[in-house]
Amino acid sequence: MAQRHPDPTDTPAATATGDALADYLRAQATEFLRALRLHRETGGHTGGGPARARAGTGGHAGGTEECVDAARALRRSARRISASLHTFRPLLDPDWSEEMRPELAWLSGTLGLEHAYEARLERLLLALHRLSGAAVLPGRAAAPATVGGAGPDRSAPAADRGALTVGVAKAGALLERQLTLARTRAHSTALQALGSARFHAVADKVALLASEVPLAPAGRTTALHTLAAAAEERLTDAVTALPLITAGHPYNAEALVHGLSPEPSPHPQDGPWHQVRLLLRLHRYAHEVLRGAGTAAPVDVRLLSAGQALNRHRDASEAAAAAAQAARTPRITPATAYALGVLHADQRHEVEAARFAFQQTWQHPTP
Amino acid sequence: MAQRHPDPTDTPAATATGDALADYLRAQATEFLRALRLHRETGGHTGGGPARARAGTGGHAGGTEECVDAARALRRSARRISASLHTFRPLLDPDWSEEMRPELAWLSGTLGLEHAYEARLERLLLALHRLSGAAVLPGRAAAPATVGGAGPDRSAPAADRGALTVGVAKAGALLERQLTLARTRAHSTALQALGSARFHAVADKVALLASEVPLAPAGRTTALHTLAAAAEERLTDAVTALPLITAGHPYNAEALVHGLSPEPSPHPQDGPWHQVRLLLRLHRYAHEVLRGAGTAAPVDVRLLSAGQALNRHRDASEAAAAAAQAARTPRITPATAYALGVLHADQRHEVEAARFAFQQTWQHPTP
Repeated sequence: MAQRHPDPTDTPAATATGDALADYLRAQATEFLRALRLHRETGGHTGGGPARARAGTGGHAGGTEECVDAARALRRSARRISASLHTFRPLLDPDWSEEMRPELAWLSGTLGLEHAYEARLERLLLALHRLSGAAVLPGRAAAPATVGGAGPDRSAPAADRGALTVGVAKAGALLERQLTLARTRAHSTALQALGSARFHAVADKVALLASEVPLAPAGRTTALHTLAAAAEERLTDAVTALPLITAGHPYNAEALVHGLSPEPSPHPQDGPWHQVRLLLRLHRYAHEVLRGAGTAAPVDVRLLSAGQALNRHRDASEAAAAAAQAARTPRITPATAYALGVLHADQRHEVEAARFAFQQTWQHPTP
Repeated sequence: MAQRHPDPTDTPAATATGDALADYLRAQATEFLRALRLHRETGGHTGGGPARARAGTGGHAGGTEECVDAARALRRSARRISASLHTFRPLLDPDWSEEMRPELAWLSGTLGLEHAYEARLERLLLALHRLSGAAVLPGRAAAPATVGGAGPDRSAPAADRGALTVGVAKAGALLERQLTLARTRAHSTALQALGSARFHAVADKVALLASEVPLAPAGRTTALHTLAAAAEERLTDAVTALPLITAGHPYNAEALVHGLSPEPSPHPQDGPWHQVRLLLRLHRYAHEVLRGAGTAAPVDVRLLSAGQALNRHRDASEAAAAAAQAARTPRITPATAYALGVLHADQRHEVEAARFAFQQTWQHPTP
């Protein structure tokens, strides 16, 4: 679809109907099948970032770079099909649509977990190194793994300003252990999912979708832009409800309120931001459908930046929760707990920074 | 001096000489003696903030509000005399000046410590309460003191959103214990100082200063503004050397770098900011001397705001160090250490926020 590059000004929005949606869905289904084929050919792994794969530390759970890219492409098209089914529901056969959506959500959720745990660990280890004053390049974040629980690495070069304290090394090792275990489990679950009858049923449905899209009787002639506008309105409403005035004041210290509250994570204050993240994605994909039909402006950089800020918000929120969770491990030392406390607060600070970045992008779009 | 309100436009700066400095020093010396008399009449206490005194929690170390105000006024004039001796050194008798300055610095340092520990404790307890999601009004920050080390206060009202966790309560109790001990020691030291021969010698010198200022031979005719301008230049140079571009980017995460480094606190990166704080104060007092002589513009609000930001920077820096120090107490629980880690990071964020506030004030003065 991206190759068409139509001039958006000479095709009015009202001309895009269910046919354009069908084009988009067919293309995404084809992409899904292509990614699935590539994924099977390259080893069937589900997670592992390129950096880790390159560094050769992926171990049992990582895959080749191609395989990881294939898994990402699989999730990418599953998300887009699912989003379109949601936004343009009235245009599609309701029974088929309602059956299909939860299956796609299950699939992309299951396939995404391994990568999420790995990214979370990388984020936390990088932060630990930053906080301990060590100059660590991305992709070399796994250093504490070699240290283990036995204390700081005595063989580290003396020039490594701010050598790891015992607490930092142990906190890193603890996070590595816990998140690697979670990642391994997610990996097994993903492998099981890919071999399951449930997955084959989804794949079959997507294969059918690649040739024929089950439009509702009125779908072929109904305009898309009304439904896309409704998706945008849901986003705008949700953004309006966010505490953007607070978020626009740097260092408002809002994200760390309740940082020591006995309530279990995740922080309830993060919920509305996560919701906006999902609505922004739905809006972006709806826009993609219209753009494919030549009835929308080019990619909106502002939406991409806003989405990146909200991804960062989600990642930092979950990393902060993982640090807090690790601190509840029985029998850890006070030094480990202290390091995890600093790490938790650091990531909550990142949450606040991401909100500020979103506010700046949203209120002051670049010209 | 402040009552004169001269029109700065009809008296050129060049007219202010050592005579104006002598006027200023005599006025400050008189103020010092007045504060000292008031201080002795009201009980001779040295610290204790008004909020604490009002709440009746000052205990043995606090004083009446009048006494606390008197101690503050004593420090206030000691700082001003000392600063003027430094900035306008060439105008004054060098032997007298060099003997006087360290004594005044000793006095204001000794008298200020008790208040500093008390303010630090209040800042940390307020932060702990904020972080635990409890709605606490300033001046009611001492709640953990009643909790002690025995765990959360079971009698706290259920409406107290986010009741204290055991870790928070214990961290609060630990800080209360350590900083109250430090405050008590500072109180004893201050009392001893006020009764010492060394103090009486300073007080005698200040009493002499109130009647006669030992100007250097050329002092009476030398212009003040050149020396005041040199003080301003030292400030400007030091500000230029600060990392203001970084500080102006909100959430740069700079202040927490080395937050887990094994190096002992205080953070070396705070040094240049502390230095600017002192130079700003010297500049402000030099300006005060000129203004007293009717040769300077009214109080510069920008300087006051910048100074407040740097005070906040210093306070947060020292509070963060106190939290880190408390976390090194042997035999604390992991939950206590975790809470102290979060608290440390929170105060380092405050350090970063204060730098941002300074940068904003400095680069974008209000019209």
